Amino acid sequence: MNSYSDAVRVGVAGATGYSGVELVRLLARHPRARLTAAMGSPGSEPRRVRALARVWDDPIAPLDIDALADGCDAVFLALPEQASAAVAPELLARGTRVFDLSGAFRLRDRETRRQWYPHTPDAGVTPVYGLTERYRTCLAKSQFVACAGCYPTAAILSLQPLVAADLVEQPIVIDAKSGVSGAGKTPTERTHFSECHGSLSAYGVFSHRHAAEIEQELDVPVTFVPHLLPIDRGILETIYATLRPGITEADIVDAYRRAYAGSPFVRLTGSELPEIKHVTHTNFCDIGWRVNESRRQLVVVACIDNLVKGAAGQAVQNFNVAFGFDEALGLN
Amino acid sequence: MNSYSDAVRVGVAGATGYSGVELVRLLARHPRARLTAAMGSPGSEPRRVRALARVWDDPIAPLDIDALADGCDAVFLALPEQASAAVAPELLARGTRVFDLSGAFRLRDRETRRQWYPHTPDAGVTPVYGLTERYRTCLAKSQFVACAGCYPTAAILSLQPLVAADLVEQPIVIDAKSGVSGAGKTPTERTHFSECHGSLSAYGVFSHRHAAEIEQELDVPVTFVPHLLPIDRGILETIYATLRPGITEADIVDAYRRAYAGSPFVRLTGSELPEIKHVTHTNFCDIGWRVNESRRQLVVVACIDNLVKGAAGQAVQNFNVAFGFDEALGLN
Amino acid sequence: MNSYSDAVRVGVAGATGYSGVELVRLLARHPRARLTAAMGSPGSEPRRVRALARVWDDPIAPLDIDALADGCDAVFLALPEQASAAVAPELLARGTRVFDLSGAFRLRDRETRRQWYPHTPDAGVTPVYGLTERYRTCLAKSQFVACAGCYPTAAILSLQPLVAADLVEQPIVIDAKSGVSGAGKTPTERTHFSECHGSLSAYGVFSHRHAAEIEQELDVPVTFVPHLLPIDRGILETIYATLRPGITEADIVDAYRRAYAGSPFVRLTGSELPEIKHVTHTNFCDIGWRVNESRRQLVVVACIDNLVKGAAGQAVQNFNVAFGFDEALGLN
Amino acid sequence: MNSYSDAVRVGVAGATGYSGVELVRLLARHPRARLTAAMGSPGSEPRRVRALARVWDDPIAPLDIDALADGCDAVFLALPEQASAAVAPELLARGTRVFDLSGAFRLRDRETRRQWYPHTPDAGVTPVYGLTERYRTCLAKSQFVACAGCYPTAAILSLQPLVAADLVEQPIVIDAKSGVSGAGKTPTERTHFSECHGSLSAYGVFSHRHAAEIEQELDVPVTFVPHLLPIDRGILETIYATLRPGITEADIVDAYRRAYAGSPFVRLTGSELPEIKHVTHTNFCDIGWRVNESRRQLVVVACIDNLVKGAAGQAVQNFNVAFGFDEALGLN
Repeated sequence: MNSYSDAVRVGVAGATGYSGVELVRLLARHPRARLTAAMGSPGSEPRRVRALARVWDDPIAPLDIDALADGCDAVFLALPEQASAAVAPELLARGTRVFDLSGAFRLRDRETRRQWYPHTPDAGVTPVYGLTERYRTCLAKSQFVACAGCYPTAAILSLQPLVAADLVEQPIVIDAKSGVSGAGKTPTERTHFSECHGSLSAYGVFSHRHAAEIEQELDVPVTFVPHLLPIDRGILETIYATLRPGITEADIVDAYRRAYAGSPFVRLTGSELPEIKHVTHTNFCDIGWRVNESRRQLVVVACIDNLVKGAAGQAVQNFNVAFGFDEALGLN
Repeated sequence: MNSYSDAVRVGVAGATGYSGVELVRLLARHPRARLTAAMGSPGSEPRRVRALARVWDDPIAPLDIDALADGCDAVFLALPEQASAAVAPELLARGTRVFDLSGAFRLRDRETRRQWYPHTPDAGVTPVYGLTERYRTCLAKSQFVACAGCYPTAAILSLQPLVAADLVEQPIVIDAKSGVSGAGKTPTERTHFSECHGSLSAYGVFSHRHAAEIEQELDVPVTFVPHLLPIDRGILETIYATLRPGITEADIVDAYRRAYAGSPFVRLTGSELPEIKHVTHTNFCDIGWRVNESRRQLVVVACIDNLVKGAAGQAVQNFNVAFGFDEALGLN
Repeated sequence: MNSYSDAVRVGVAGATGYSGVELVRLLARHPRARLTAAMGSPGSEPRRVRALARVWDDPIAPLDIDALADGCDAVFLALPEQASAAVAPELLARGTRVFDLSGAFRLRDRETRRQWYPHTPDAGVTPVYGLTERYRTCLAKSQFVACAGCYPTAAILSLQPLVAADLVEQPIVIDAKSGVSGAGKTPTERTHFSECHGSLSAYGVFSHRHAAEIEQELDVPVTFVPHLLPIDRGILETIYATLRPGITEADIVDAYRRAYAGSPFVRLTGSELPEIKHVTHTNFCDIGWRVNESRRQLVVVACIDNLVKGAAGQAVQNFNVAFGFDEALGLN
Repeated sequence: MNSYSDAVRVGVAGATGYSGVELVRLLARHPRARLTAAMGSPGSEPRRVRALARVWDDPIAPLDIDALADGCDAVFLALPEQASAAVAPELLARGTRVFDLSGAFRLRDRETRRQWYPHTPDAGVTPVYGLTERYRTCLAKSQFVACAGCYPTAAILSLQPLVAADLVEQPIVIDAKSGVSGAGKTPTERTHFSECHGSLSAYGVFSHRHAAEIEQELDVPVTFVPHLLPIDRGILETIYATLRPGITEADIVDAYRRAYAGSPFVRLTGSELPEIKHVTHTNFCDIGWRVNESRRQLVVVACIDNLVKGAAGQAVQNFNVAFGFDEALGLN
């Protein structure tokens, strides 16, 4: 797909899942990457993936760590957290650069991590939290990136500039809605078409691991309630906070503009609120807001595609920064 | 459809819209009502409604006030607010009992009403706010009922017992999601299939009339943000509030149980949160909740079918109470 | 739910599946039935069904043949075919009247049945094929009814009057589209929301058991191709045939009118073709048609709700006829 | 977006519709094109298109023929047929190369064209029918391309090799299903979300213009029935024909392989039938088939994305061939 002699040799583990398929698609046409391996989970049955016809036509073989370590400069892990927890340290020990899309290594605090991800070992290498817009400098040349979760990506991009500038007060409410692909590809009663279609449900109230991830990055408590939307892909988060006394809409606008001046994938939509349809199949995070100054109410709405900016696209964005490429390479 | 010699003669105005069709279906099989008229809006083209085949096969003629006043003891108005504003006073003046599904007469405060419903005149008769569970006593024998709006129904049923018992603190956030039928039957770019399908959007932030209606009934300010869900019918509201110090989950449970002990259409689901699919095509309002006592966070989730409990079903429920029938008659 | 001292005691086996839930709903409010048992499959875990709240609040216990035989005059089997094959003969032997919704006993020819339903034994009692409109006389007083399949119901009601009157020539093509609930409640990759939403697929070409059922009832070969629609419930079949020389649209109309003059659940829509939305949640089969006489082309479109007229509703309709009640009792 | 000094200057007329937006996206990143104009219809209101944020941020101004003729080497018309009928001849007269996506100029027979497209004048230049796989040679250097319709693209690609090799007999049935974006962006009752969601309907039986287009290219009569699917984009066609005596599956396979050996956008899937989800957002036409030799039945299933291979993508594919570029340039 490209003719660079110095292309980075990349591999994908977990290539049959929804994020994995998206990764294979992105990397197969990435101008500076050469996709040398697309594997499944450890022990998975080899299978062709119809969604990858003409992109990767070979069967997706089970994960082979030796082959990945030998044949790839960088490996993307789109695996269940437990598999990532086992595989990442081995690859890192052999010098491979690792971009992990699971939650296994995202939480820095050992106690918190043990609570939510009990299978995660010490990886040997300290991971960088892979939210590109926030950790660009750390990502450069990093060996190990724990890519941000889908819900946290939209939440942190929306809230971090406001919290950092001390513009908002508690409580902060994040009402999040996600398409069903966010629940993964394994069939369950919850993801059965007839159970989702024409319906909506909340889940994981006070018990979703992404709340811990958001609180780690914001360093303030939040109330986070995810919902399962009857769509395939896309996340919309409606975020509520109280403005500190004296804060105006201009302060909000200013904070966002400064935060994202150099960020090609954050689109500030102002009072024209984002909609999921405008971000699906893109790596954009759209952020809009409405302010009621007299009541000191702030409502922020943010949208991403959970499989792109919330997973595969962001991983490639992190990869670009880590390898010194243009941040947007292969993502337009 | 029934053989009572003393059946109440009822009519529906606005029978071609989504709520109107639902009303015709409910009233056609109501054991104590005889549906004598199903009309459109003033000046509408006569048209057969395929969704009413074998229920009401005649063309729906344009609204004829004389015919309604002469042929009906009670008339249900499923009209745009401006048409209701014009029609209701005339019917009331002729002694007809009126159940208005529009918002025209819901707001009691004259200034607030003028702001949101500038076309509404003094109706001559003071309307009862038609949320059955809250105004049963007033509804009995009332001549004029301004049936509660769809969003307010779920919001008020969820919040009123908690606010009345002083269990929660400000701010109160209502994140509401509605199916597209809530936007009515007139085709618009916003309700075009390709614009809604696979997407989600927020709208009416700080500018939706239902916020005023909710605040009227709760007598406290709320932050209300509605969203357009890619489903046909159903509303889910996720409601956030802070518990007052010392308030426990038991207090919440107790408040709800006392409030709805005698209410056949409120189902308290406790920690098993409601989902839209369980209420569609029913008159139920399902209410569930989760409490985090240490953080004093309360999340309430409520679901209704916007066309039944949020419109036609509730109107019939009000009708039942107003005429002294069993509240659930014709609604199971 | 009713006060008849002579109510028929009925039971449902398989009450947790989609057809079973629909059966429980219909029978719980049937004026001449008393629902005494709602059970699962043999060996199933007891579980409450949220979709049945306020209709059947007890846990659905595993199937108990003795309890069914002792406590019910009639039992509806909404079980997988193998379970029906095992349970039906036992109930019949004890004198219970059985309405089987599975395919186990629908095929009369032993060889054909062995091919498609290898687990089906001789039931001891000859089943009546449960397509009410076609077998009303046989159904009266029958002990055992093998209710018609969902696809065959629409196909046979559409084609049988035309084939019987010798109006059409080969080949006959049935292009059928069904909502996902037709595939049952067990989660599979095929019924995963993200695999169905926004897509359409054909399946079972030349290998679907319903083709044999349709050919049995029509006694002519058909080409039958089902498709999986991204909706929950409803079937639309587009049927193509060639008119015999000299046959006109009037002949088609005449054949349909004579066939369905006394059938409350067949609505002939003429050239205004049926749509799924007009039959969902009803027991109607809508049939419309278009004729191009010069080219001798006939297109018939038929719609049903696969869970009502294609399953639970039709079973109740059969039950009504078998017990001598009005055919439409409890179905409006 | 590209650095070729010799880039072709291209313009899009009708850039606010669904096909137009897709065209702008494709052309904006096409390596050999420079998008110099994106205009609306004649007289349209200037408006920004949110779906084009960061791709084309200027307002889409009303169509200006002079500006198009002066500033563009090639113009793509994604206009209603009547607008195309008026605009195309003017541009052609000024030497611009025109790729028309409407149906205005597709029918060669004057009488047939007058019947279906009464507004179409003589364009002055004879158009090439723009189905790339079939008219590659004619397309090279052509000035005027009448790009194939969405339904005809899938139908002709599926049937032409079989008809040309005389493998199938009459009657030929094309049961076609399309997503709602095929009906265009103008809001109508038919495309209202609540009218499509959860439903399916047939339309245009014996009266759809695409039937004439298919028959022109195949030179045999077909029975064509389109349906409106509750999805946004994608077409699936199920095609039925009778095999001529002696014809085997191997003959079918052979015909397809020979026809599409050099076609990058036709994927033959054999007995694994195509599904819409595998072609959306791509320029592929997937074709699969099942044969019952003993009954001489053939079923072919074909899928495309109606906005890509059925509209914008195919137009770009035609453009590539017309300008001597690689057929797949900018389309992967």
